[in-house]
Amino acid sequence: MGVVSFARGVPAPECLPVSELADCARAAIEADGTSVLSYGPGGGYAPLRAWIAERHGVEPSRVVITSGSLQGFVFLAEQLVHKGSRVLVEAPTYDRPLKILTRLGADIVGLPMDDDGLSIGALERALAEGEKPAFLYTIATFQNPSGRTLSEERRVRVAELAREHDLLVLEDDPYGLVRYEGTALPTIFELEGGTNVAYASSFSKTIAPGVRVGYFVLPPALAAQIEALAVSTYISPPFMTQATVHEFLRRGNFEPNLERVSGLLKARRDAMLDALERHMPDGARWSRPEGGYFIWLDLPEETGDLLARAEEAGVTFVKGTDFFADGGGTKSLRLAFSFVSPDEIAAGVEKLARLLHGAPSPAPAL
Amino acid sequence: MGVVSFARGVPAPECLPVSELADCARAAIEADGTSVLSYGPGGGYAPLRAWIAERHGVEPSRVVITSGSLQGFVFLAEQLVHKGSRVLVEAPTYDRPLKILTRLGADIVGLPMDDDGLSIGALERALAEGEKPAFLYTIATFQNPSGRTLSEERRVRVAELAREHDLLVLEDDPYGLVRYEGTALPTIFELEGGTNVAYASSFSKTIAPGVRVGYFVLPPALAAQIEALAVSTYISPPFMTQATVHEFLRRGNFEPNLERVSGLLKARRDAMLDALERHMPDGARWSRPEGGYFIWLDLPEETGDLLARAEEAGVTFVKGTDFFADGGGTKSLRLAFSFVSPDEIAAGVEKLARLLHGAPSPAPAL
Repeated sequence: MGVVSFARGVPAPECLPVSELADCARAAIEADGTSVLSYGPGGGYAPLRAWIAERHGVEPSRVVITSGSLQGFVFLAEQLVHKGSRVLVEAPTYDRPLKILTRLGADIVGLPMDDDGLSIGALERALAEGEKPAFLYTIATFQNPSGRTLSEERRVRVAELAREHDLLVLEDDPYGLVRYEGTALPTIFELEGGTNVAYASSFSKTIAPGVRVGYFVLPPALAAQIEALAVSTYISPPFMTQATVHEFLRRGNFEPNLERVSGLLKARRDAMLDALERHMPDGARWSRPEGGYFIWLDLPEETGDLLARAEEAGVTFVKGTDFFADGGGTKSLRLAFSFVSPDEIAAGVEKLARLLHGAPSPAPAL
Repeated sequence: MGVVSFARGVPAPECLPVSELADCARAAIEADGTSVLSYGPGGGYAPLRAWIAERHGVEPSRVVITSGSLQGFVFLAEQLVHKGSRVLVEAPTYDRPLKILTRLGADIVGLPMDDDGLSIGALERALAEGEKPAFLYTIATFQNPSGRTLSEERRVRVAELAREHDLLVLEDDPYGLVRYEGTALPTIFELEGGTNVAYASSFSKTIAPGVRVGYFVLPPALAAQIEALAVSTYISPPFMTQATVHEFLRRGNFEPNLERVSGLLKARRDAMLDALERHMPDGARWSRPEGGYFIWLDLPEETGDLLARAEEAGVTFVKGTDFFADGGGTKSLRLAFSFVSPDEIAAGVEKLARLLHGAPSPAPAL
C-alpha cells in the first residue's frame, strides 16, 4: 500500500462511468455535431441548459454553465467583489473560494459553525454591523471541508434574512445529490424562491469531475452579466463535454449512476467512521455526514507538525487551517474518504491515530 | 438566400470533421478514461501538451492549454496588465483583446499597419518614449481583422527589438496553418527563440472551434504563473476535448484535414476577391491574404450608416471601428469569407457594392 490520501477530495476511479461516457460523447457529437463543434451561447449548450432550468424551475437564460463551478464562482466574484468588499463565508469553508476572494481584496468575514451548520446569530450580527456584504457563500449540504449540513430550521432563517436584508446568498451545492442515507432537506434556493439566492452545482460528483460541467442558477440580471463575462473570457464553453453530459442524462443514466456512486461512497464513509471510532484518542470529535466526501476531525490539541509526520508515515490529509481566512482550524483536519478504498481508509486512520498523543496502541493483528 | 454574413469569423459547417471527432472522442475516453474524466494538471492534458511542446521545441511545462486561446490571453493580461500599463497592439487588431485590455484599465497604444503588417518605425517610437510596455500583441499572419501578414524582414526586426528592449511579444497565430498558397514565413517566436516571445495558437481553425482547445508557449517563469492562475480559476481544463484533439492528431488526421479545410477556404477567398474586383467602386482598396478568414476593405469615404443599410439589404459585416482602441477604422470593413458559401459571397459583395456611392450598376444577368 502506497501513501493513503485523505487529501484528495475526488471520486475513486471506479466511480467514473468511463465506457458509458465514451459512448455518450460519440453519440452527442454525431447527433448535433455542427452545434457541438462550433461557437455558441456563452451560457452553455442549449439542451443541457434547458434540462437544468427545468430541474430548478427557472428560465434557461438564468442558467450559466461553466467549466466546473469554480469558474462560475470566479466570474461571480469578479462581478460583485471589489477591494474591501465584505463577503460572508462559513468558517471553515472550501479553500479555493477563500483564495479567490483574497486575490480580489475582499474583506472575508467567517461565520462560525456547529454540527447544524453556520451560526444564525453570527450571520445576524454580521448583517447588523458594517457595510452590506457582497454575498454570503454557503455550502449548506455535506460541506467541504466539514461534512456538516445546515439544518432545515436554519435554512429557513437564512432565506428569511436574505429577503429582509436584500442579501445575495450563493448556495454552492455540489454534494447535495450524493446522499446515501437520511432525508434530503430543501435547498435555501427552494425555500427563498431564487430572488436573493443564487444556486450552484456541478456534475463533478454525480458523473465525473473531468467533464468540467458546473452551473449557476442566477437572478436574471446577474445571469446576463455573468454570461457576458463568460463570452468575453472564452467566447463559448466547450459544448462537447456539456453535450456528453446531456446525452448521459437523456439516456436515463443519471439516477442509476448516482445510486451506484452513493453505494461506493457510503462504504468508504462507513469505513472511516468505524476506524475513527476504533482508533481515535479521547477528546477527538468528528462529523458524521450522511453524504458527500468529507469528515472533519477536531483533535484535543494543536495539530502542529502532524501533517509532516503523517506524510512520513504514509498518510496525508489537508490541515484545518487551510479552510479559514483568519487563522482558525489549528486543531482540525479535513479527511476525504472519497478517493481511497475502504481497506486503505482503515489502514490510514490507524496510522494517523498512532501519531496522536494519547492514542491507544494498535490492536494486535489477528 | 437569407442574410449573407461576412461578420462571422468562423468556419463553415462543412469544414468541421464531425464523424471523425465523434469517433476520436469515444476512443480517447475509452483509452484513458480515468485520466480524461478526473482532475489533473491545470496546464492541460499531458499527451497533448507533449505533442504541442515537441512541435515547438520546448519543454511541456512551457505549454499551457486553455479552453480556446482567448482564455489564455485573459490569464496573461490579468497577470501582466495593471491599471495604466501600456500595451502595444496593431491598429487595427482583434476586438476581443481590446475589450479585455480596456476592462483591465490598460493604456492601449495602437501601432499603424500597412500591407506588410505593423509599422516598425511606430514600434521603435513607442519603445523609445514612455513606460516600458507590458507586452506587444501581434497577430503576425493573416491577421484578424485585416488579413495582412507581417513581412519576414519586419519579423526579424520585431524579434531584435524584443531582445534589445526586453519586450515581451505575444504572437497570436491561430491562422498561420490555414495557408492555401504562398510560402510560410518563420514565426517571430522561431526567429527570437522564445525568450521574449510568447506564442499562442489553437485548434479552432485547424480542427473545430467548438473543441475550445487553444494554447500558449511561454517563457518558463510565466508559464508557471499562468498555470497557477488556471488552477485557481478552474482546477483543470476539460481533458475530454483535449484528449479528443490528441486522438485526432495521433491518427494522422491533422494534415489531411488542414488540406481539406484550406481548399474550402481558398474557394471562398477567391470568390470574395473576384467579387470585390468586379463590383467595388473606384478608390476602394482591400487586402489579398494567402490564407486565413478575413479581407479588410478600405473605402474612399466614411462608412457612416452602411452597416444598417447593408443589414436591411441582407448582408452583414463588422465595422472597422470595432478594431481600433482610439477611433480609427471609420472608412473600413472587416469581411469574413470563412462562413458563407462562394455563391453567397458573390451575391453578398454585389449587394454591398450597390449600397456604395459611386458603385457601378450590377451587370445584367446573362
